[in-house]
Amino acid sequence: MSFLDHIRACNAHDLSGFRPFDVEGHRIGWIRHALADRLPEVDPGFVVTADRVTLAPELRDFEARSATLEHAAQFLVEEGAVKALRNEFYPVLPKWGAEPLMRIDRAAVAQFGVAAYGIHVNGFVRQDDAQPGGSLALWVGHRARDREVAPGQLDNLIAGGQPIGLSLAENLVKEAQEEAGIGADLAARAVPVGALSYVMETQAGLKRDTLFLYDLELDPGFVPTNTDGEVEKFELWPLDRVAESVRTTGDWKFNVNLVVIDFLVRHGWLTPEEPDYLDIVAGLRRPVQP
Amino acid sequence: MSFLDHIRACNAHDLSGFRPFDVEGHRIGWIRHALADRLPEVDPGFVVTADRVTLAPELRDFEARSATLEHAAQFLVEEGAVKALRNEFYPVLPKWGAEPLMRIDRAAVAQFGVAAYGIHVNGFVRQDDAQPGGSLALWVGHRARDREVAPGQLDNLIAGGQPIGLSLAENLVKEAQEEAGIGADLAARAVPVGALSYVMETQAGLKRDTLFLYDLELDPGFVPTNTDGEVEKFELWPLDRVAESVRTTGDWKFNVNLVVIDFLVRHGWLTPEEPDYLDIVAGLRRPVQP
Repeated sequence: MSFLDHIRACNAHDLSGFRPFDVEGHRIGWIRHALADRLPEVDPGFVVTADRVTLAPELRDFEARSATLEHAAQFLVEEGAVKALRNEFYPVLPKWGAEPLMRIDRAAVAQFGVAAYGIHVNGFVRQDDAQPGGSLALWVGHRARDREVAPGQLDNLIAGGQPIGLSLAENLVKEAQEEAGIGADLAARAVPVGALSYVMETQAGLKRDTLFLYDLELDPGFVPTNTDGEVEKFELWPLDRVAESVRTTGDWKFNVNLVVIDFLVRHGWLTPEEPDYLDIVAGLRRPVQP
Repeated sequence: MSFLDHIRACNAHDLSGFRPFDVEGHRIGWIRHALADRLPEVDPGFVVTADRVTLAPELRDFEARSATLEHAAQFLVEEGAVKALRNEFYPVLPKWGAEPLMRIDRAAVAQFGVAAYGIHVNGFVRQDDAQPGGSLALWVGHRARDREVAPGQLDNLIAGGQPIGLSLAENLVKEAQEEAGIGADLAARAVPVGALSYVMETQAGLKRDTLFLYDLELDPGFVPTNTDGEVEKFELWPLDRVAESVRTTGDWKFNVNLVVIDFLVRHGWLTPEEPDYLDIVAGLRRPVQP
């Protein structure tokens, strides 16, 4: 493994296996051909040609479009392609910040190749103030073994998908409390530091994810406490150990590797002397809109 | 103006006006058609077809290739397309970190559309330690009015092109001394924080630049002193003033806008609530290798 291998793994995909999903003139997703071909029988609202999937013009508003997508999500459960619906909904956006065209159950997002958004917070401790960037430690979460996604793997202090109806700041406060027992006052000290994106083909479909990144500096005495069962335990690791673990193992949740690599770049652990430096820096920022 | 406008301005170009310049199987530059067509008369080492410019196969080594490029650079001076050669040489690289294929006078880099590299250092002061990212100030250089490039415009504390034969760290020490009177010990505290890139068409040709970025935290009492005549004066500006100036004016050297915008993103001044946030973040990292 190398740092770049993790970035490549998160960007491995072949669009030729997918059909564009266009709504109201916006390309909002990518659907596997096999699923695309069956959608008209699931709901007559889906209009499927060899080139693309669209919605029938009479589906003019948010609710009508969302209902059609909900039928498709239920179909995926009946077929066994999706284990269960989450009843947690993601917005389907023509572009980040725009009005949602419809909503989609989180469990079906990848099946429709819809762009999804999330927040990841690096919880870090500065162990020696005299050395800027020199001696940092990062809080590492060990994901619970009963998780459907990445059981037992390593994670950020706080991370979560971005559901419809919450602002990023509200979601951050919610996730900080659930995942790390961090109150709103401390969560508000998280500094937004950028975003990363990737397009990854999975068994489910196409994950087109954008992660908003935050750094949260914590006091050396602070200890996080998980409250929602997602994390088995937290450990504070020196940045050297974090970097070595990311570089040489597959222990981290696939996309958390990228969050940590971005942290290593921004805090000067990864330097331009690294042969892959420019490919790493550019690779973290690929556009997710095809 | 907007933040995104500055990024767009640095990426405005139309490759149809240029012909690829390939050496040893690597695409190393882009040359305007009018110049490409005249190169065979300048030096028989240039092999020009309607599709591309290459070098004659007998030019097998660094010195032979560099001599041919030097003839072309002298030709550009004779024609008045370049004011004067700089006798400062940039490496021509198939990729950052690789062995140089040849060298080229800095004054002729854009005419050949060769990828160039540089360093930019944000010199900043933390004005209130209790507020992480909250209250920063940035040292701003006013470029001397006699500069050929961007006279009188605003600049970073330290910036410079990357000449052949120096490492980035060596170049940083050299430029820190020349531009800001900063010694090697303090310069070594600059933290590498990433890189940005752009491809910009100018009167000269195609600027394909990658800037390695550093943050250097300075004590509140420190005052920089320019020693090479490039900077008329330095001022310490609160980050709010810096951001407002970049957002609303054309006062800054074209590419320094991008360095500052990257700083604003990394330090949480620019937040995901900014409608252009994702376009800004991705726009700072476009690949310069076509």
